[in-house]
Amino acid sequence: MLNLKVNKARIQHNILELGEIGLSQKGGVNRSLASQADIDSRKWIKEYWLKNVVSEITTDVGANLWGSYPYVSEKELAPIIIGSHNDSVPEGGKYDGALGVLLATEVSQTLSENEITLRHPLKVISLTGEEPNPYQISTLGSKIISGVVGQDNLKKFSHIETKESLADAIDRLGGDFQHIDENVLKPDSFAAFLECHIEQGRRLFEREEPVAVVSSITGIYRELVELKGESNHAGTTDLKHRKDALLAMSWINLELRKFLSEFDETDPVVGTIGFAEVLPNAANIIPGSVKFNIDIRSGNWQKVEQTITFLDECFEQLWEKGIQNQREKILYQKPADLNKQISAALVASTEEEYKYQPQQMTSMAGHDAANLARIGRAGMLFVKSVDGKSHCKEEFSQIDDIEVAGNVLLNTILRLDKELD
Amino acid sequence: MLNLKVNKARIQHNILELGEIGLSQKGGVNRSLASQADIDSRKWIKEYWLKNVVSEITTDVGANLWGSYPYVSEKELAPIIIGSHNDSVPEGGKYDGALGVLLATEVSQTLSENEITLRHPLKVISLTGEEPNPYQISTLGSKIISGVVGQDNLKKFSHIETKESLADAIDRLGGDFQHIDENVLKPDSFAAFLECHIEQGRRLFEREEPVAVVSSITGIYRELVELKGESNHAGTTDLKHRKDALLAMSWINLELRKFLSEFDETDPVVGTIGFAEVLPNAANIIPGSVKFNIDIRSGNWQKVEQTITFLDECFEQLWEKGIQNQREKILYQKPADLNKQISAALVASTEEEYKYQPQQMTSMAGHDAANLARIGRAGMLFVKSVDGKSHCKEEFSQIDDIEVAGNVLLNTILRLDKELD
Repeated sequence: MLNLKVNKARIQHNILELGEIGLSQKGGVNRSLASQADIDSRKWIKEYWLKNVVSEITTDVGANLWGSYPYVSEKELAPIIIGSHNDSVPEGGKYDGALGVLLATEVSQTLSENEITLRHPLKVISLTGEEPNPYQISTLGSKIISGVVGQDNLKKFSHIETKESLADAIDRLGGDFQHIDENVLKPDSFAAFLECHIEQGRRLFEREEPVAVVSSITGIYRELVELKGESNHAGTTDLKHRKDALLAMSWINLELRKFLSEFDETDPVVGTIGFAEVLPNAANIIPGSVKFNIDIRSGNWQKVEQTITFLDECFEQLWEKGIQNQREKILYQKPADLNKQISAALVASTEEEYKYQPQQMTSMAGHDAANLARIGRAGMLFVKSVDGKSHCKEEFSQIDDIEVAGNVLLNTILRLDKELD
Repeated sequence: MLNLKVNKARIQHNILELGEIGLSQKGGVNRSLASQADIDSRKWIKEYWLKNVVSEITTDVGANLWGSYPYVSEKELAPIIIGSHNDSVPEGGKYDGALGVLLATEVSQTLSENEITLRHPLKVISLTGEEPNPYQISTLGSKIISGVVGQDNLKKFSHIETKESLADAIDRLGGDFQHIDENVLKPDSFAAFLECHIEQGRRLFEREEPVAVVSSITGIYRELVELKGESNHAGTTDLKHRKDALLAMSWINLELRKFLSEFDETDPVVGTIGFAEVLPNAANIIPGSVKFNIDIRSGNWQKVEQTITFLDECFEQLWEKGIQNQREKILYQKPADLNKQISAALVASTEEEYKYQPQQMTSMAGHDAANLARIGRAGMLFVKSVDGKSHCKEEFSQIDDIEVAGNVLLNTILRLDKELD
């Protein structure tokens, strides 16, 4: 192998520069799907790519950005794709998504500067709308290109506040909703999809290791619940005659936590109510209804299903007390295994570059790679998150760990370019 | 006494007409302080009054509307004031507040049509911002004119979303914030304040009685809490490392309910979390903070204080688990006794007109009359609420019960006009 190395200072600089886009006064990054900051970050990426990395940029029907690496010898081969997403959660960090895009960028830039000719076409990608967002669909870009969703499913989505249709938002970002079904990736139409991402958990932090290889991606069940009680006066309605929807949600929240705490920690199931909206939401009115999400995750799908059954019983009990519910399944995504050949290449690259054997682990967060894994070879590399923090402004990964990831990715691209057809 | 009677059909018509203002597609009335619908309802009232009821309308420093009854023989006497408020909660009903304004209007219109000359000046009033609202101060108009709050306190309030200062909102409604301290009612500067209001509870409904006399008004304690945990990824953060602010609020909600349920039902204390706002409020992020109100009410202030002590202990327990809090006291309003002479006049009028002795009861809702009671004679009449419902679109009072209330008020005005100096 050539002794190519990524440029640590440049990565650092790019993380901070891209991280300015959507930065709020509170210090969090806000680049929700189709927001102005989403648009601004796309502009930054396109300008940077054209100046430093690629020969051509295209935007696909799902508004994903693709950059084409210039030095390729066997253009007829299926491409190797490397990247992640540019959007963020509200008040999120500078690393989730952005790091994967920037390391894909850095790897390509390093190859390009050294005028390395690859056999396979190499595509850098920045995916659309990976995070939950007001249009209520996550990993959007990868769902579209892997054919997990099509025009018919996507028609029903719209912005929860502005009511803009998802179709309009996609077109506004440069996509082409009308032709969204026509241009999906065919199965095995790419040689490999490679994504680097922060772990967002504490496992690497506690082991003091810089990177790990992702063997599978957690299953995620998510529902949107509307509990309906009865709004009434908070002074004059005695306790016995109340049907307080927020109190009912509070009970579900505590029951869920008790239930999950009983599972074995070594094979965890986690559950969260992260979004809740109370109506009418006034100090002196008993809440008549509350909308909220329940998110359940595990690498062990059977445990997720046990939890859903438990929730069914809880909602049944509430119904008997006069609290009705409407429950809509938003995600029912079973755990996804990633490709063993790509994982092996990531392990081998880490061993070669850094003389240590990386852990292989289940990702407890969902990722675009899970969608791509349905139609081709997908692999992921995790970078240590300090203190396991993520989806918050404190999210942080050390530049030395990031450098390790960059060099492992670089080595892996070169390795896969040789190995794969 | 003259055999004057209010006009039932006219009251009915006016309830429906005023109830159209701020009516949403969901069927609730939305006339929050300083909203367009608040402004529109004020316009309706002023036009109706000028056309049918009064000789002159003035707007005081607090933007309360005052109408002057034309036929008065002893203009030097302190006035009798009758009215209620024109604003509403979000998605509220057509009766809360509006009914009191419209019955005051009807009584005056009936007197005026018959050219009845009163000894005392009679003032119809529509008070500003009685309900909780985004400026975060309720019974605003009555607080201003009874001197409970002044310019210094009021300066700090602003709209929770638009950030408009309360001062600007008051001026926009026709008030005069700069001179708000100068024009308050002096103690005993009015002969009587009389307010009719729906009960908003089930007591009259269960007894099948049309009206009751309010002997005192509940004490209300209200605080705005901000719980601060740690926002983090809902998949990758194990249960043990979570500091979920919404889960903490859920626990407070259930503990509060358990504590209140242990009090004797005949001397009740009620408590509610009616407003809650989660941050960052996304499906896959553990809530880092939540703002919410706790509202505690009882006619027995000692029990309210016991409940506050209990809450202190709960928040202390949360603090030990890493959930910090900021608590701001919004209301600390002890129970208010209403004037016995006015109550006696209301009882006597009911007996005379309808040959039955009305109940005397504590109001479990706060009312403007509680503020006026601090500086002069105040009395209240309750009208039956069907099924006890209030602060919701189902809020309803039967027109026959409303007619009873109207005639009792009319009789009471004539009675007090003779009795009082």
